[in-house]
Amino acid sequence: MGGYLTQPLKRAASLFGDRLAVIDGDTRYSWAQLQERVARMAGALHDRGIREGDRVAILAYNSFRYFELHFALPWAGAVMVPLNTRLAPAENEFQLRDSQPRLLFVDTEMLPSLDSMGDIRDTIDVVVLDPASGANEYESMIEGAVVAPDRAPGGDSLAGLFYTGGSTGRPKGVMLSHDNLLQNAVNTLIGVGYDETSRYLHAAPMFHLTDGMATYSVTMAGGIHAFVPRFDAVKVLEQVQAHQITNLTLVPTMIEMLAREAERGSYDVSSMRQFQFGSSPMPDATLERALRVWPDTLFLHGWGMTEISPIGTMLPHHLRDPKVAGARLRSVGIPAPNEEIRIVDENDEDVPRGQVGELIVRGPMVMLGYWNQPDITAETLRGGWMHTGDAAWQDEEGLLYIADRPKDMIISGGENVYSTEVESVVGLFPGVREAAVFGLPHEKWGEMVCAAVLPEDGVELDLDALEQFVRSRIAAYKVPKKVFVRTAPLPLTSAGKLSKKTLREEYAPSA
Amino acid sequence: MGGYLTQPLKRAASLFGDRLAVIDGDTRYSWAQLQERVARMAGALHDRGIREGDRVAILAYNSFRYFELHFALPWAGAVMVPLNTRLAPAENEFQLRDSQPRLLFVDTEMLPSLDSMGDIRDTIDVVVLDPASGANEYESMIEGAVVAPDRAPGGDSLAGLFYTGGSTGRPKGVMLSHDNLLQNAVNTLIGVGYDETSRYLHAAPMFHLTDGMATYSVTMAGGIHAFVPRFDAVKVLEQVQAHQITNLTLVPTMIEMLAREAERGSYDVSSMRQFQFGSSPMPDATLERALRVWPDTLFLHGWGMTEISPIGTMLPHHLRDPKVAGARLRSVGIPAPNEEIRIVDENDEDVPRGQVGELIVRGPMVMLGYWNQPDITAETLRGGWMHTGDAAWQDEEGLLYIADRPKDMIISGGENVYSTEVESVVGLFPGVREAAVFGLPHEKWGEMVCAAVLPEDGVELDLDALEQFVRSRIAAYKVPKKVFVRTAPLPLTSAGKLSKKTLREEYAPSA
Repeated sequence: MGGYLTQPLKRAASLFGDRLAVIDGDTRYSWAQLQERVARMAGALHDRGIREGDRVAILAYNSFRYFELHFALPWAGAVMVPLNTRLAPAENEFQLRDSQPRLLFVDTEMLPSLDSMGDIRDTIDVVVLDPASGANEYESMIEGAVVAPDRAPGGDSLAGLFYTGGSTGRPKGVMLSHDNLLQNAVNTLIGVGYDETSRYLHAAPMFHLTDGMATYSVTMAGGIHAFVPRFDAVKVLEQVQAHQITNLTLVPTMIEMLAREAERGSYDVSSMRQFQFGSSPMPDATLERALRVWPDTLFLHGWGMTEISPIGTMLPHHLRDPKVAGARLRSVGIPAPNEEIRIVDENDEDVPRGQVGELIVRGPMVMLGYWNQPDITAETLRGGWMHTGDAAWQDEEGLLYIADRPKDMIISGGENVYSTEVESVVGLFPGVREAAVFGLPHEKWGEMVCAAVLPEDGVELDLDALEQFVRSRIAAYKVPKKVFVRTAPLPLTSAGKLSKKTLREEYAPSA
Repeated sequence: MGGYLTQPLKRAASLFGDRLAVIDGDTRYSWAQLQERVARMAGALHDRGIREGDRVAILAYNSFRYFELHFALPWAGAVMVPLNTRLAPAENEFQLRDSQPRLLFVDTEMLPSLDSMGDIRDTIDVVVLDPASGANEYESMIEGAVVAPDRAPGGDSLAGLFYTGGSTGRPKGVMLSHDNLLQNAVNTLIGVGYDETSRYLHAAPMFHLTDGMATYSVTMAGGIHAFVPRFDAVKVLEQVQAHQITNLTLVPTMIEMLAREAERGSYDVSSMRQFQFGSSPMPDATLERALRVWPDTLFLHGWGMTEISPIGTMLPHHLRDPKVAGARLRSVGIPAPNEEIRIVDENDEDVPRGQVGELIVRGPMVMLGYWNQPDITAETLRGGWMHTGDAAWQDEEGLLYIADRPKDMIISGGENVYSTEVESVVGLFPGVREAAVFGLPHEKWGEMVCAAVLPEDGVELDLDALEQFVRSRIAAYKVPKKVFVRTAPLPLTSAGKLSKKTLREEYAPSA
């Protein structure tokens, strides 16, 4: 008998039934009301033909309804497939064809993108999630249904598919079980320290597990969930002030924007207890600015990846522990309590402490595998260990540091961008002979996606047309913000490989 | 991929390698040293023929070696069977024959009891654990072996058999998995709040999970483990003072003894941060006395049972939360974060809030079942819920209260005594016609086991001989401390059932 994702809701409804569960615009529901709605939505899903193991996708911005679906889908025995609203339609079409959901919950704003996905609307039942279109189909489903029995299978059963960009080839649907997500929830409870007085604002996208890890853990603690549809510094600060928000999980880029806006405006944001952040270390200037606004607030640095549900390590007492100062602020911390990590060479042998190697992870948070990709799954999980592809090292105190980006990855505004994927699209544009994609430092986004292209002889590239071409095929955040047209071939290393290091130096913004 | 019981040790050795792990008399080992010893003991077990799934029993008092076996046995892939040193030889013989271990670790002091167990020593390989006999066989095994690969199977695999007294019939071997025990460990981390500065003294018997729940959780936190062989108020206070112990898990009877001794002697016990206690609410007088000695120490009340690994509920902020005062001090708190509880009638339907019903539990902490007892397992786990047999109710805040003892159980000094088991033994004594066993209030033990007997006509019972007879068959703590000889038949209820209530009133000590 393992864990099951309906449990945190049922426990909260039993213990804290009359207390506030969600705040979203004018909407307020208690835990008891929320459980009733979830159980009825599960009934509606069953009426609509959803059976155990069926996938149900969501393409939507943050809302309390998205939150409810995190419980209603497991209650119905269904598998959730949260899609990334920032991807190009062609990318989401791929994920829909790959995961084959029977039903798709979608925001009105995302509806037009479905029309460019061939026959998708003929093969998948579509329900509009938000009330923009007047009568709301989601609410009608709840009203018209009766409470369903809890069909959550639990334990090792598949709970969700969470797509990650791939460095090569097609995106991978990470299969996470009920136990995977619940192990992550208790790790979050221990690491972050949520309790029944916590008030969490879902400000980062709910389709990413970076935000998702608060969904079950804050519910276990009996805290309150608030929502903004998408990150917007002004709206986030308004919500923090209006609802005395205590915790936010953001990437440093967002914290920077928030601190700048807080300095500009006049908000009472003293209720904040802790920022949880990840994906890259906090730049010194951002930290300095954030501490001016929130001098008494904790900053918890973590590292994770979708394949481990997602928390891997957390740096406790960031800025409070005298041991964690100076260079140690760049550490991602220590492994979760129920996790084992190793740093190994290419033969999976431990490297000496202090040396860089590949970070591998073992424990109950490790994914079941990649959907329909048994070969990559076997390779990634060989020997019973999750091979993260991240280069890392540990200091003498056991603190972990991410040494370098895996496989030529750029992190821009908290999103992972794989150079090879962008290069393959740029290279398709007529007249491009060679293309290289790389990141340059950027004050706001951490890194900015850039491209260097060598045209065919005699061709003058139309850069606006190139941008349109790329934008129609991949997500906007992956599109190069600067394209450098070269006359000389791309630089090579002594081994004859493309030298991105040389490119980054050549095109570095002057200080 | 689930959890595995070697993980907390390997994580501690990786993160806190040079730091102190265990203190036991003059013995000190760091986490790195401890891991080396454990891995070598696992090698020695393998050399001795222990293979995955083999049972290995332990009949011993508390020590760092007992602690090491909690990791060495899973490392070797073996299943631990901790036996109760307080049971009569016939009782332990039953458990050994039932669990069929290939190997038994035993303290010198317990060796003679093996001689009264028929051919047990011919069928089970016996290793003496403590060094009382000069050369130590356990240490020789470690010295003579090489480090073994970690064979811990993890997840749903059987990790241990933990015997509980049965109200009827034979004792039951509770089968707990790796995941069961690790789920309990993270619940303990969250509920108790251990961290790397915690220093835990194993003062309650390590064969009970009441103490065992600290073994994996304090290790996850990177805290220090200290040991006393068995509970002794003076020795415990000496250890608390010598090693700045921060946490103890005890039953109220032991806390009473500790507080009395602390008031008598002069100990510096100000390092104590929290007492975790369970099995019965704290008597007001005990709490008052304990607060005189430890005015700033927290008292965490919990409820659990072996079948749920063992934590079920915890009362947070005991004595600190203004909501938790008066009658609420008798509450056992709220369910663990990953647990669902219900209170149901005899048809497993929920009773209204506030009414008494049977407490049932669902979640990843629920046992695999009872060893070799599929029928009782199916009955106890019917519908996917653990039926605890405990009568309980919840108040309007969701706090849980144990309403009554199940099935005529007496709790004396923290041990459960089933009246029916004692009655059956007393009833076997020649000349006894009727026997009833019941508990009377006792200042030190909470309850005292008492018996009322009606002799056969004309027989004068030899009470010393009766005590000897009973003592040779069951554990000393189950033997009636007072036997009341009756001339009138045992009192009956209006329904014709034996009335223990009448007996308790009739024989109640005058106030």
